[in-house]
Amino acid sequence: MSDLHVYDTTLRDGAQQEGLNLSVADKLAIAGHLDELGVGYIEGGWPGANPKDTEFFARAARELDLRHATLAAFGATRRAGGRAATDPLVQALLDSQAQVVTLVAKSHTGHVERALRTTLAENLEMVRDTVSFLTGEGRRVFLDAEHFFDGYRSDRAYALEVVRAAVESGAEVVALCDTNGGFLPGEVGEVVDDVVRTTGARVGIHCHNDTGCAVANSMAAVDAGATHVQGTVNGYGERTGNADLLTLVANLQLKQGRELLEPHRLQDATRIAHAIAEVTNVPAYSRQPYVGSSAFAHKAGLHASAIKVDPDLYQHLDPKHVGNDMRMLVSDMAGRASIELKSRELGFPLDASDETDAATLRRVLATVKEKELRGYTFDAADASFELLLRRELEGSLPDFFAVESWRVITDARGAGEALSEATVKVRTAGERRVETGEGNGPVNALDHALRTAIAATYPEIAGLELIDYKVRILDAAHGTDAVTRVLIETSDGTTSWTTIGVAPNILEASWDALVESVTYGLVRAGVTPR
Amino acid sequence: MSDLHVYDTTLRDGAQQEGLNLSVADKLAIAGHLDELGVGYIEGGWPGANPKDTEFFARAARELDLRHATLAAFGATRRAGGRAATDPLVQALLDSQAQVVTLVAKSHTGHVERALRTTLAENLEMVRDTVSFLTGEGRRVFLDAEHFFDGYRSDRAYALEVVRAAVESGAEVVALCDTNGGFLPGEVGEVVDDVVRTTGARVGIHCHNDTGCAVANSMAAVDAGATHVQGTVNGYGERTGNADLLTLVANLQLKQGRELLEPHRLQDATRIAHAIAEVTNVPAYSRQPYVGSSAFAHKAGLHASAIKVDPDLYQHLDPKHVGNDMRMLVSDMAGRASIELKSRELGFPLDASDETDAATLRRVLATVKEKELRGYTFDAADASFELLLRRELEGSLPDFFAVESWRVITDARGAGEALSEATVKVRTAGERRVETGEGNGPVNALDHALRTAIAATYPEIAGLELIDYKVRILDAAHGTDAVTRVLIETSDGTTSWTTIGVAPNILEASWDALVESVTYGLVRAGVTPR
Repeated sequence: MSDLHVYDTTLRDGAQQEGLNLSVADKLAIAGHLDELGVGYIEGGWPGANPKDTEFFARAARELDLRHATLAAFGATRRAGGRAATDPLVQALLDSQAQVVTLVAKSHTGHVERALRTTLAENLEMVRDTVSFLTGEGRRVFLDAEHFFDGYRSDRAYALEVVRAAVESGAEVVALCDTNGGFLPGEVGEVVDDVVRTTGARVGIHCHNDTGCAVANSMAAVDAGATHVQGTVNGYGERTGNADLLTLVANLQLKQGRELLEPHRLQDATRIAHAIAEVTNVPAYSRQPYVGSSAFAHKAGLHASAIKVDPDLYQHLDPKHVGNDMRMLVSDMAGRASIELKSRELGFPLDASDETDAATLRRVLATVKEKELRGYTFDAADASFELLLRRELEGSLPDFFAVESWRVITDARGAGEALSEATVKVRTAGERRVETGEGNGPVNALDHALRTAIAATYPEIAGLELIDYKVRILDAAHGTDAVTRVLIETSDGTTSWTTIGVAPNILEASWDALVESVTYGLVRAGVTPR
Repeated sequence: MSDLHVYDTTLRDGAQQEGLNLSVADKLAIAGHLDELGVGYIEGGWPGANPKDTEFFARAARELDLRHATLAAFGATRRAGGRAATDPLVQALLDSQAQVVTLVAKSHTGHVERALRTTLAENLEMVRDTVSFLTGEGRRVFLDAEHFFDGYRSDRAYALEVVRAAVESGAEVVALCDTNGGFLPGEVGEVVDDVVRTTGARVGIHCHNDTGCAVANSMAAVDAGATHVQGTVNGYGERTGNADLLTLVANLQLKQGRELLEPHRLQDATRIAHAIAEVTNVPAYSRQPYVGSSAFAHKAGLHASAIKVDPDLYQHLDPKHVGNDMRMLVSDMAGRASIELKSRELGFPLDASDETDAATLRRVLATVKEKELRGYTFDAADASFELLLRRELEGSLPDFFAVESWRVITDARGAGEALSEATVKVRTAGERRVETGEGNGPVNALDHALRTAIAATYPEIAGLELIDYKVRILDAAHGTDAVTRVLIETSDGTTSWTTIGVAPNILEASWDALVESVTYGLVRAGVTPR
């Protein structure tokens, strides 16, 4: 492993993206994925400036069990004219319990004088005071030098002075930020080279994609001596976004042999990029380098026959290095090997060299491909995948109940609150049951009605709770052709699982996911049909 | 004007993108837009290999009145063992009437021997024979050296030999192609520099975005002496796409002062990029550099107050140079300054120094904050923000209709398809209307019922179409407390707008967003209440 820092700012700068709005639970989920990817640092937000971020750090301390990553809290240098030791926002950074504090500081004279409205000397003092106070309190301090490249262009001496002030006060890294995103690789490389030589600082790089060069700019900085790279998963961020961290790391590691992550980690890149897209609910970009669904897709024709001779003639890299697949057809994220591995993980030790098992694997793969073509995504719905697998394995998925019909009515008067009422007709334990449930929404009402209908037979379901519900419209051009994908997360109080439904009608998709969630709950509890 | 060629291949290499399928009429429309942009060359397709492309060149000769651009026909060198003069595909290039012919040729020994299955000497002869035949017939010939960078890496001498063969036979340009897209700027620059020095050829560059560096690679090539740049509008293309031509030209022209297009042309870049996206039916990418809808959008409140001081502190370039606009996103990070700027942008010139306006701004800000606390997010719903603003401005939001009640029923038998039926009761034009609509989902049914109920009064709504629907569950822990946020995008055929609804019940939230979408459509169309 090289000593390059991989510093992720999806949860802070990435969250500045238009239309992206993360709950605390979303942030915790993303942090888990980032840790699994193996990044060194996860910038969680700005505690103190934003109650949601304060809560994130409080819950992260209790709930997140990070194995690789260190959490970083982002914040500003103390106020002009004040003292770091008594600044409430600086105190909030300490209170966050984060071991790393990343301080943003001005390094552009125009910004100091016109946006911050203080003197150049006081700005330097703010850097010195805040960095040394926080290091004195035992924190590792990184400094984000905001608008550094523009600042360097307009007043090189002052920009360098800010870097020196940070380093002399104990900052471990000074990340140079192209905040407005307008720079190009040549100039970025020259500036970083000068900063490294002149100040001796450990330099980091933080780029935005306004010239389409965020990744190339970051690489130019690393070539020039930067040893800390910042970026966001899927390139989320304000305006055109930040440097796409996965593209950047893949380039540095797979093309230039700089080992930023443990060698096997990038093999999860595609899965993790898509899992995070599910959390943010920002549609995955099919043309995204390395991890996009089209990144290794070839239109049949001239290429197809040559690819059969030697795939490497037509691909820049073996897609397995980033967990992606070459595709000649529409849809197949899954290969037989990954289904075999997944089955083993779920406790079904299928062996591809055994003939019966191999036939089962083929059937499962065919079903997965057919369903993914229709909009299913089993990456995000382990429980539905397990039910699919059990259906192909003789006798391992019993019928707990049979649905005859369901109906849900929602109405409202004027601007009044809407109410939903559902009626469900099922057969269970040899009896026909007709039950009605109410709810503050149609899915809630269906959930209540279904539980009431089967609770007498299966009291075990009393402990199940629907804890999350996600909806995505696929192929959204022209409403009527669209298909709705619903993901439902259900908890039994100790663990949780996710099921999926896909249908043109949002309530049909929701119903299918609900039935799967209850069925899986019964399987998991070891219940047999009554 | 510099003598750099701007060579567009949207209609040929761009059309290789997964899911992109252009009719001849589409291609003619795109060619018109490209000519208006002022590119030098438009590669129209491969006549002879593809009947659609043959037809394109035939119709282009009759129907297109190009003012700036020259059409180029793409094709391959003659078959191994044959003669250019009698090769039917070479004849098809002549028949296309295109003044420029761009020939693709192998320059990688592995591809010559294993994909083309001929000898290295014969491949050189194919280049010489085809280029000299076409130049002898009065055509200008450009050569695309396929897999050039990989070929150079594996056998530099042979790759250079192909370039020399083309130049000596009369090719005007030799475009070096990173066909598999795996290269990085440093190596691209070194290779181009070597080719320019060694062969004296006029060198072009053709990059793909597999490392996220297509634009940076193309710029490195220009720095090293390439004087012909190839790319596609919106970066369309196979896998991760080609170099985005507009980003590349904007970087070269606005950042480096190389004049590729007449100075005023780039001011149409945003409009033309979106017009071409309408033709291809590929959704525009909001984070696209320069021309994306988010490219100059600002969310943070901290930035907004500084932007009032000096917009250039927070943008890398004045967006008017590319025909784009700065947009302020209203969000819970917003302050009064961003509301003031946003109002001005929408055509309501509120002035914070005027007492009445200041009071309005305070009320709007308070309403925004209160609503965002309940789950609204106005940065994603400009139209709902404008309605909110109009409600605070005396007389600027009329009542078009009043909702008495609505109801929607969805039902299904067994595993059958679910159907939805909605009934809406509204008062409009002094009458009470009760109408029912059906749909493949509850929102679709509500949409149909609402339109039916008001269409007699407001026939203007016939042209409105719901084009996207997004759902997000907020604070998802413990289902019953959750709030649902719905975003609806509606189109009137020329533009589109987004409205928002937030409620515990997903259908109530959807209904609210629907009512706003129709109301905004009527306001926008200048309709007065009847």
